[in-house]
Amino acid sequence: MPKYHDELDAVLRALSDPTRRAVVERLAKSPAVVSDLAAPFSMALPSLMQHLRVLENAGLVTSQKHGRVRTVSLRPGALDVLHLWLDEQRTPAERQADRLGIHLTRTSPKEI
Amino acid sequence: MPKYHDELDAVLRALSDPTRRAVVERLAKSPAVVSDLAAPFSMALPSLMQHLRVLENAGLVTSQKHGRVRTVSLRPGALDVLHLWLDEQRTPAERQADRLGIHLTRTSPKEI
Repeated sequence: MPKYHDELDAVLRALSDPTRRAVVERLAKSPAVVSDLAAPFSMALPSLMQHLRVLENAGLVTSQKHGRVRTVSLRPGALDVLHLWLDEQRTPAERQADRLGIHLTRTSPKEI
Repeated sequence: MPKYHDELDAVLRALSDPTRRAVVERLAKSPAVVSDLAAPFSMALPSLMQHLRVLENAGLVTSQKHGRVRTVSLRPGALDVLHLWLDEQRTPAERQADRLGIHLTRTSPKEI
């Protein structure tokens, strides 16, 4: 699955920078205009725009321009590829714990 | 939480390389000796050792030497920091879907 792996490479590399992670954290709450995104960072706007381009190229965010205002959103399902990969890496012990958890959820009384 | 963020930086950067990800995927199944880890890759042993050092510095793997044989293991809970961060990024819509899922699990008949 070369496409899956290329996507994972790009997503992981994009997220390995704390500023880009902070942008994703902010956008997970709601879309934001670029000037609002820039506000918490003591960084020039061109630097922030460069980070946004990395996130956009990795398929993590999309943006739309209305007049002079650019709004950035987290792409729906943006982090799915990472969830999927992490799920695949569960160790045999973790899988056993998951099965036990599902069993307990199904057999517990509703009020618990 | 600077420590948490430094750890995330290192883990994400370590995993953004496909060879290092393949090593983690292999070790999620069971520990392995270095020569077995190297076998699927057409790469010189020193290059593989360098990748292992990056994974070890990121806290993802540990290794032990018995005589001339070095065995590498995935560190228990190695990927927890990434699971935690991903959980925090669930969007409001995803959180609502999670709550619905829990509700359905609790109210479904056992045999489903």
